Amino acid sequence: MNLQAAQPNILRKMIKQGKLTGHTSGMAKGYVQANVVILPSKYAYDFLLFCFRNPKTCPLLDVAEKGSKSFINYAANADISTEVASYRVYHHGKFTETRAHIDDLFTEDMVSFLIGCSFTFEHALLDAGIPIRHIEENHNVPMYITNKPVNPSGQFKGNMTVSMRPMTMEQAIKATEITTHFKNVHGTPIHIGNPAEIGIKQLSKPDFGEPVLIKENEVPVFWGCGVTPQSVALDAKPEIMMTHAPGQMFITDVPDNQLSN
Amino acid sequence: MNLQAAQPNILRKMIKQGKLTGHTSGMAKGYVQANVVILPSKYAYDFLLFCFRNPKTCPLLDVAEKGSKSFINYAANADISTEVASYRVYHHGKFTETRAHIDDLFTEDMVSFLIGCSFTFEHALLDAGIPIRHIEENHNVPMYITNKPVNPSGQFKGNMTVSMRPMTMEQAIKATEITTHFKNVHGTPIHIGNPAEIGIKQLSKPDFGEPVLIKENEVPVFWGCGVTPQSVALDAKPEIMMTHAPGQMFITDVPDNQLSN
Repeated sequence: MNLQAAQPNILRKMIKQGKLTGHTSGMAKGYVQANVVILPSKYAYDFLLFCFRNPKTCPLLDVAEKGSKSFINYAANADISTEVASYRVYHHGKFTETRAHIDDLFTEDMVSFLIGCSFTFEHALLDAGIPIRHIEENHNVPMYITNKPVNPSGQFKGNMTVSMRPMTMEQAIKATEITTHFKNVHGTPIHIGNPAEIGIKQLSKPDFGEPVLIKENEVPVFWGCGVTPQSVALDAKPEIMMTHAPGQMFITDVPDNQLSN
Repeated sequence: MNLQAAQPNILRKMIKQGKLTGHTSGMAKGYVQANVVILPSKYAYDFLLFCFRNPKTCPLLDVAEKGSKSFINYAANADISTEVASYRVYHHGKFTETRAHIDDLFTEDMVSFLIGCSFTFEHALLDAGIPIRHIEENHNVPMYITNKPVNPSGQFKGNMTVSMRPMTMEQAIKATEITTHFKNVHGTPIHIGNPAEIGIKQLSKPDFGEPVLIKENEVPVFWGCGVTPQSVALDAKPEIMMTHAPGQMFITDVPDNQLSN
């Protein structure tokens, strides 16, 4: 089966049935993939405000009604509790387990959020001839927790997580120009050039994902990353929080080009 | 005193002291003016989600912390309960009174929202040589309740309110191009040309504001309007809701050009 050409709902059913596992980069090409955060309703206001206050790290795409497993605009017939390849569960801010399904943990009180993912703008960068190293190397993007604080909302606070893509400075300028038009999927870079300036000590040791080769004529380019809510959860300590596992995104029914603005 | 050249904080103090009343169009030129909605905290989540779901009518600029009267990004030293020229108070969805101050009604439980206002993009239209009729006629913009439903959130539902500016079709196209870059202040028009198509019976009888002259070679151009929350409140029926009076906006410390994107 050609996973790149497959329709989102077909892939989601395969994921539900356990026939498809691992990272979803490159699947259902042309469709938006999203970060997932699921929280008890008493945290929903603070988290919604957190997204509003941090559009570069947490660009909000859709919010399900309380207790609903589907998204009116992004995936009206989906089941968010079974159609992600791998979930992470946190209790009181501690990562407790990875799971294939979370339907037994999902209650009528849960609110589910979809947050933009950089896969969307990567397609636009590739189309413009900008190479994406981690795709060339066929693994997950390297992600780093920075020393830059997010704009806090209630108990959601902490430092921003970024993803990194190496490229020449000319390509970095072009990539900034292109991502100006993708504000719903992290927008323009947070930083270009000096990792130390945003508190990153070793590019070879990412906090999530895997390191990539940086060539001699290249600079590291950092974008806000939708894993930020997961690192922020360490501080927020909600009694339960469920997310996708990094790189194993929720595949929506919405075409990428709807997010260009 | 030159009100057009005055600084926002000076004008807000004059308003607080009752030395300045009436509509604020043209004051503190170059600074963002905002629609105001103040609600008890139990409605804050549904209203925040309402704003997210209706960016063209309710483009959210800032949210105060619960019980706070100032806005960290837009007016850090303001008092939202005294620095608007005229407030409207609604009880259970019914308009009950107009007031100069609401400090005695404002409790620790209130959450205040600032919503983008079309004054910001009007400056950009004027700079591009597009005439704004209600400014020429020196009165408030005409506003109409349409038959187009907003995207509901909880008890916030009902029909969209729009503002109208007549211009030639060539100017309407230029205005659409310009407002593409003002997504935080209503963005592009909701409709151009036929009032009946959006449920408006008589342009000479606006629901809020005053009618304007439409010349023979002109079409009416309709933008989402920040008065929408006030008309939506008729359905939502919160026990109390406080807003600015139409045209008498909250003057923020943020320059207009920060809202161009």
